[in-house]
Amino acid sequence: MPVYKAPLRDMKFVAFEVFDVEASWQATPALQEVSRDLVEAILDESAKFAEQVLFPLNRSGDEEGCRMENAAVQTPQGFRQAFRQYAEGGWIGLGADPAYGGQGMPKTVTVLSDEILFAVNPSFALYPLLGIGAALAISQHASAAICQRYLPKIYAGTWAGTMCLTEPHAGTDLGIIKTRAQAQGDGSYQITGTKIFITGGEHDLTENIIHLVLAKLPDAPAGSKGISLFLVPKFLVNDDGSLGARNGVQVGSIEHKMGIKASATCVMNFDDARGWLVGEVNEGLAAMFVMMNYERLSMGIQGLGASEVAYQNAAAYARDRLQGRSAHGAKAKDLAADPLLVHADIRRMLLSVRAHNEAARCFTMYVAQALDQAKYAEDAEQRQLAADRVALLTPVVKAFLTDRGFTACVDAQQVFGGHGYIREWGMEQYVRDVRIAQIYEGTNGVQAQDLTGRKVVRNRGIFVQRYVEEVRALLASMKNEPELDVFTRPLARALERLQEGTDALLQQAVHDPDASGAAAVDYLHLFGLTVYAHMWALMAKTAQPHRSENAFYADKLRLGAYFMERMLPEVDQRLAAVRAGAALMMDFSEAYF
Amino acid sequence: MPVYKAPLRDMKFVAFEVFDVEASWQATPALQEVSRDLVEAILDESAKFAEQVLFPLNRSGDEEGCRMENAAVQTPQGFRQAFRQYAEGGWIGLGADPAYGGQGMPKTVTVLSDEILFAVNPSFALYPLLGIGAALAISQHASAAICQRYLPKIYAGTWAGTMCLTEPHAGTDLGIIKTRAQAQGDGSYQITGTKIFITGGEHDLTENIIHLVLAKLPDAPAGSKGISLFLVPKFLVNDDGSLGARNGVQVGSIEHKMGIKASATCVMNFDDARGWLVGEVNEGLAAMFVMMNYERLSMGIQGLGASEVAYQNAAAYARDRLQGRSAHGAKAKDLAADPLLVHADIRRMLLSVRAHNEAARCFTMYVAQALDQAKYAEDAEQRQLAADRVALLTPVVKAFLTDRGFTACVDAQQVFGGHGYIREWGMEQYVRDVRIAQIYEGTNGVQAQDLTGRKVVRNRGIFVQRYVEEVRALLASMKNEPELDVFTRPLARALERLQEGTDALLQQAVHDPDASGAAAVDYLHLFGLTVYAHMWALMAKTAQPHRSENAFYADKLRLGAYFMERMLPEVDQRLAAVRAGAALMMDFSEAYF
Repeated sequence: MPVYKAPLRDMKFVAFEVFDVEASWQATPALQEVSRDLVEAILDESAKFAEQVLFPLNRSGDEEGCRMENAAVQTPQGFRQAFRQYAEGGWIGLGADPAYGGQGMPKTVTVLSDEILFAVNPSFALYPLLGIGAALAISQHASAAICQRYLPKIYAGTWAGTMCLTEPHAGTDLGIIKTRAQAQGDGSYQITGTKIFITGGEHDLTENIIHLVLAKLPDAPAGSKGISLFLVPKFLVNDDGSLGARNGVQVGSIEHKMGIKASATCVMNFDDARGWLVGEVNEGLAAMFVMMNYERLSMGIQGLGASEVAYQNAAAYARDRLQGRSAHGAKAKDLAADPLLVHADIRRMLLSVRAHNEAARCFTMYVAQALDQAKYAEDAEQRQLAADRVALLTPVVKAFLTDRGFTACVDAQQVFGGHGYIREWGMEQYVRDVRIAQIYEGTNGVQAQDLTGRKVVRNRGIFVQRYVEEVRALLASMKNEPELDVFTRPLARALERLQEGTDALLQQAVHDPDASGAAAVDYLHLFGLTVYAHMWALMAKTAQPHRSENAFYADKLRLGAYFMERMLPEVDQRLAAVRAGAALMMDFSEAYF
Repeated sequence: MPVYKAPLRDMKFVAFEVFDVEASWQATPALQEVSRDLVEAILDESAKFAEQVLFPLNRSGDEEGCRMENAAVQTPQGFRQAFRQYAEGGWIGLGADPAYGGQGMPKTVTVLSDEILFAVNPSFALYPLLGIGAALAISQHASAAICQRYLPKIYAGTWAGTMCLTEPHAGTDLGIIKTRAQAQGDGSYQITGTKIFITGGEHDLTENIIHLVLAKLPDAPAGSKGISLFLVPKFLVNDDGSLGARNGVQVGSIEHKMGIKASATCVMNFDDARGWLVGEVNEGLAAMFVMMNYERLSMGIQGLGASEVAYQNAAAYARDRLQGRSAHGAKAKDLAADPLLVHADIRRMLLSVRAHNEAARCFTMYVAQALDQAKYAEDAEQRQLAADRVALLTPVVKAFLTDRGFTACVDAQQVFGGHGYIREWGMEQYVRDVRIAQIYEGTNGVQAQDLTGRKVVRNRGIFVQRYVEEVRALLASMKNEPELDVFTRPLARALERLQEGTDALLQQAVHDPDASGAAAVDYLHLFGLTVYAHMWALMAKTAQPHRSENAFYADKLRLGAYFMERMLPEVDQRLAAVRAGAALMMDFSEAYF
């Protein structure tokens, strides 16, 4: 049976020791009521519910999958009841505006509960997540009347939400969508078209489903500047908030996928469906990106959640499974063999996964703190600086955590040998499920091009420069602690590589339009590795004074040193690839491929 | 619909141009009758059968899987007939001894037909492959009477074979198996025990199944020195070769796996089954390793076959799918969008996969040539040198080609975006299917420890040194071709890294028994990358004189340059990890994990 315990000790270390989020809550008027005690109680409850209710449904949900019958989708056994409990527990509105029934918790809290949720049941996680994302786009772009009508129901889990972007011929390239909207003169629009890959497009968990749909008006400009966003409920909503007639939106089929089989991925047909504009005409992409950016951090967290549960199971297996003998001779002399843990190569895999997990957790908290500042800081300039930081790091957290999370799950599976390949132990499901996170909400290649193109080249590297200065300040603050040299020296070196890579990218981009795309994924990994080194330096600085008090802190320093020594050197390879430029790869004829 | 065309042009380039295998056949008395014309005809037929018959069964086989009813296993629809055709075509005996009905083709031929087979249908491939492996162990270790009785039937595909090693508690560590053998006084033994993960343990493809089973005699020494190998047929064989009574071996259940679902992976129960000794008492592991080593090259080829078919599909998709515009502005102005191929990041993925595939193909041919020399060379010393080379490279070809093949399949899947995650396009199956190749026949971690422990440290690096000298001679032969500097310089640099890594490993191993395990996987990848650079240099040397004749040769040089510039720099990271040693990772307490 798979095991999972929410890593609460580590979460608290990151939140309260490394970043001292309690101090930032107290310094923020809007967050005065958030306290460490309250948040610890929330995390304990979140862990309990996740471990006891949602985790057991993960494997059965994978085996059963979703079923479609008569234009209705049935989620696997247990999902309906669990969703009810989840909604009644107030979890969907945990981070939402209290004006609409939310609990107003900052991102520095919800990143932790999200990690737990994604670890125990990623298919389940997507149902509430899409609703929260839709609600966020509505709250920032729709009228007060729409907000009042829809948001409380979504936060209560009475209704769910979706984002309808992709069409059969249009995925990354939304400029060419064919779905059409026609104004009806009464403030509503008629929406017609087909959307595919719609997560939670149809299911049996809620009374209503609120679709956010990208479509084009008849006179819209070509390309991405002619896209508007519409709210299209499955059931129309009467003025008193009760449900009215069925709207013209139907599920066409559900996809058979590699993983997340308990998440209904639907083809949705809109046939003169009634919808309402969200945001301004032709500015739908901007409104949708509010939602997309929210989801992108969550997808990074999905990568982390998966590798955390994979780690815990691999570690348990390595402790229990007896196979072979220590290189120093038998350790467990009374047993037929030693536990796997005596083997260096098994430790290499486990430590690589764990070094990723702990850096990733620290990174999500770092981004969460910037998100809270961007939202709550009193000072407008501080808000802008934080928003710029979030803009820079969102593609990194999404793509790096999912690329590394996938690799980590594969490594954890490998610890099991043949037992990792059969369904029984659950490891192969973690690999199949997490794979989607590298693809959806913008593939990791698209994330990387967002980073190099929009977040670096477009502002000539100023966001990166500000980040580099912050890390330099950290290095300066650590320079009188020689015992931390094993952290500061490799971090300084990685930071140089990042600057060299940034310079190379900026120079290439001046004369070669392909440079940004050619460098993108390698630049993103160079960036992510440097961020991890930064996170490990922060954790080491925090742990250092306590290293002799408690094995917890000494082990942190040890694992950080492992990362610096064995994993960080990859920056050189990534820099070499960034420097290589685009010319060679663009030189092949199309017929060659 | 997935596409596949056997890469015959590339195969011929590697075989006849890079390695000139025809000259080596002609110089070998036993292979005088093998000619280029004959082999090209064989490859054409192999390609035709694979593309037309086996490839269409790949997806349906995955969806249908194997079924077990009343202690019998049913393979998916079409498999029986395809196996009949395959057997009747003489494919199972292609590389087998003509004395037993084989066609006597050298390994330099069968590596190519094996690649095609694994590309089109890895589940199917395992059925004949296990038979061939079993036959090989029998032919080298069993009595002439046993050989005469069993081999012709296996090569004809009338009977199949298995290897029964793993038990519930014993995978890598075969020293602790519990299956018992008891001599019956008539030359036969009674075998009792349970084996798991038995590929093709039971199925409906053949009249009989010949199990090779590891078991212990009552007085056997403990550990791996007390293991004997037994031949246990499903049906006993009468003196005239006809089938007799059912033997005491039964399938207990079949596994539900991540992939290769059309391959029956069985739990096998041996209950006083009659068996016959193969090889000497207590020397079963050595006899089994004949089979294992044969399979290990094949598993590497499985990695290559998978990434080749994945590449072809990703390239086709990238040519056809219209999405976004070239960074230089619209290319296909009359269409709504440009093909994916205009994007540098798409090319990066495709070229990385292809650079791996072509180097891997060259590498399998290089190992095949050494295998042929080890078997057929007139001179005993030459045979020994070739056998040493094979011993050194077998773990590399198995683990490196499957690790890289897996990554390549994931990259190819990524080209499809969301369409890569759904079953419809077939890409997710390639990823699921190829994953097993990193695990079975000795996990890649075990391969790596075989490399560092037995193949490097045990002989103090002499095998590596001989390999390095060969590459140095190649570099010397290229030194007057300045236009090949883009190959020779990075190869020379990688070779230095390999030597530094070898020296570091040998030094560490003197005082630290864990060093070999700690360095293993990174050392293996350092080795594999260097071999790829070596292969690319060989291909470049071959292509260079023809570069202006034909785009085929110019493109070879271009792809090789891409490998050298963007992929080879990973050697530095691998060397850093090798140098890091074991101390840090062994320093964590067991309770930490």
